Amino acid sequence: MIKKFLFIGKNTKISDTVKFGYNVIIEDNVVIEKNVQIGHNIVIKEGTIIKAGSVIADNTVLGKEPFKASNSATTEKRKLEPLVIGEYVTIGANCVIYRGAKLEDGVFVGDLASIREDVVIGEKTIIGKGVTVENKTTIGKFVKIETEAYVTAISTVEDYCFIAPEVTFTNDNFLGRTEERKKYFKGPTIKKGARIGANATLLPGIVIGEDSLIAAGAVVTKNISPRKIYAGVPAKEFGNVPEEQLLKNQSYYK
Amino acid sequence: MIKKFLFIGKNTKISDTVKFGYNVIIEDNVVIEKNVQIGHNIVIKEGTIIKAGSVIADNTVLGKEPFKASNSATTEKRKLEPLVIGEYVTIGANCVIYRGAKLEDGVFVGDLASIREDVVIGEKTIIGKGVTVENKTTIGKFVKIETEAYVTAISTVEDYCFIAPEVTFTNDNFLGRTEERKKYFKGPTIKKGARIGANATLLPGIVIGEDSLIAAGAVVTKNISPRKIYAGVPAKEFGNVPEEQLLKNQSYYK
Amino acid sequence: MIKKFLFIGKNTKISDTVKFGYNVIIEDNVVIEKNVQIGHNIVIKEGTIIKAGSVIADNTVLGKEPFKASNSATTEKRKLEPLVIGEYVTIGANCVIYRGAKLEDGVFVGDLASIREDVVIGEKTIIGKGVTVENKTTIGKFVKIETEAYVTAISTVEDYCFIAPEVTFTNDNFLGRTEERKKYFKGPTIKKGARIGANATLLPGIVIGEDSLIAAGAVVTKNISPRKIYAGVPAKEFGNVPEEQLLKNQSYYK
Repeated sequence: MIKKFLFIGKNTKISDTVKFGYNVIIEDNVVIEKNVQIGHNIVIKEGTIIKAGSVIADNTVLGKEPFKASNSATTEKRKLEPLVIGEYVTIGANCVIYRGAKLEDGVFVGDLASIREDVVIGEKTIIGKGVTVENKTTIGKFVKIETEAYVTAISTVEDYCFIAPEVTFTNDNFLGRTEERKKYFKGPTIKKGARIGANATLLPGIVIGEDSLIAAGAVVTKNISPRKIYAGVPAKEFGNVPEEQLLKNQSYYK
Repeated sequence: MIKKFLFIGKNTKISDTVKFGYNVIIEDNVVIEKNVQIGHNIVIKEGTIIKAGSVIADNTVLGKEPFKASNSATTEKRKLEPLVIGEYVTIGANCVIYRGAKLEDGVFVGDLASIREDVVIGEKTIIGKGVTVENKTTIGKFVKIETEAYVTAISTVEDYCFIAPEVTFTNDNFLGRTEERKKYFKGPTIKKGARIGANATLLPGIVIGEDSLIAAGAVVTKNISPRKIYAGVPAKEFGNVPEEQLLKNQSYYK
Repeated sequence: MIKKFLFIGKNTKISDTVKFGYNVIIEDNVVIEKNVQIGHNIVIKEGTIIKAGSVIADNTVLGKEPFKASNSATTEKRKLEPLVIGEYVTIGANCVIYRGAKLEDGVFVGDLASIREDVVIGEKTIIGKGVTVENKTTIGKFVKIETEAYVTAISTVEDYCFIAPEVTFTNDNFLGRTEERKKYFKGPTIKKGARIGANATLLPGIVIGEDSLIAAGAVVTKNISPRKIYAGVPAKEFGNVPEEQLLKNQSYYK
């Protein structure tokens, strides 16, 4: 264990097989299991748990508390669970991952990504470079979310889905107006194995059916049936997903 | 005041109620008022002013000078005003905010956002995660600019506007061609209370009328009248903004 | 040469005219030529070469090794060439640039950008704020790639091209399905002087002809002839690029 320029808080449990870069800041009550690799200039906030074999790249912040507007007298700070990073998770450089998130075993997070509180990311899922996963969102296992996609709050992405680069999820049909809208806040639900093409836009609360396919650039304004292809603005049906592309016919599907 | 691994330049004025994380670098002539909270690995460049009660998260750079192409012999470096961060401003992690910007009281900036020089951001405005605000742009008060939106140079966003995730502003109809184009460089003007849907694209110099609404995924190629809804590629009129959604009928409008 | 809080590995060759900020971490075998300026909190990984006169802003990571999924037993780590940064290159804050990339002289990289391995970027090209350039991609000289554009893997952008903000390149028509798709992985080819408008989406393997123009928000589904304008979803021909906008008539074209 290299210990140069390493600041370790109180009540931490850190395996002596952990490898640290320079200038690592570890706050109180952190747990780091065996064979974890921590890069340079990394900040690990209070209570974070990192399980065996994970790798964290330079300049990343783990376990950030959500900020409330600092002049608010009324909003009470909710107590969040610590950030939990599973076994053999890989996290890129310059990421920001919040307290109250849970990354299951084998998750991969690209550089410059951010993951908010109250998020669970299933095993072996890939979160691309610069992706945002907002709060109260659940992502399944073996999902791929590609570069700069935006997954809004209160969304669901089930197992084996594919979200292409620059896809945009939304959750507010009222764009910030009316008090009543708050009852309807809801992101999209992407059912098992569905795939969303590059730069597509999904309207609030939409359900994308199992194994269906949304073409690049589409704007989806209504629910999509399973195993259908939709394209255009607004998106219209273009037929069935080809048999050989269905999830059940893929070698990696278990 | 915790002073570990804190580098403070000359001629700074720093309240002794300021809380610092580890490895904070403060260059010369910086002013930090009372009860400011500074995270870890933060760089505060020459001359930056941070007013009382503000909070700055880890790995953020404040007061960056714009770079010119380093091999240019002719471009003279303009002298910019210092970055001014108002009272009770909250700034996320891994942000880059330039010298010559001014953030009024109560502004909130998400993680990984960037704000360039010659920008003013009005009080209580929210700049989302990963948003870019380019130079020579004015943003009003009580505006919300959501995740990964791109606000180009020489744009205006008036008070109470709402800019959804991944919206793209543009300012050059000639995409980098002809010398003459430089006369026409201009970003959109979003009038008071107008709202732009997710992943919409706004052409250069467009005026979006007061309290109007652009649907998600629209491409706006001409000026939009007040209180109208537009959608599609290119965007076409779809009727009036519903009465209950108008700005004057919102509880938060003063 | 300021030497405070500077960590220098073994076998480095660093000119004594280099200027360092605070907390710079330089790993083994790095070469930094004369008059380079290195900001604060910068990580320069093993073997990186930075040529004379270049400028690197705060919190940037240079020479990162690609991560493989850490629980993979089969993927062998390929040996990449060191990152080479040419003369008078300017790199912004909070960037991540990989080993195996080469930035030619005079390249400018904005803040929060990322550039992957096996990428060459030609001289005087501008990579905007938050841009992603994926692996196995070649970018020519005098190209401008604007804020948050996404250049996928296995793409080609020839000299003098213009890629507007938020443009999305794609390289997989099968969105992650079928083993056969791997034969067809291919990003777009943007021929000399072609221009892509803001938030446009380019389908896999598309060729955009020399000096042609894709309008903002277009979704390009087929090859585009030289000097044509295309717009819409899917993109359709709208006539010829005006004579005065052709590359050959620009003062900066050599």
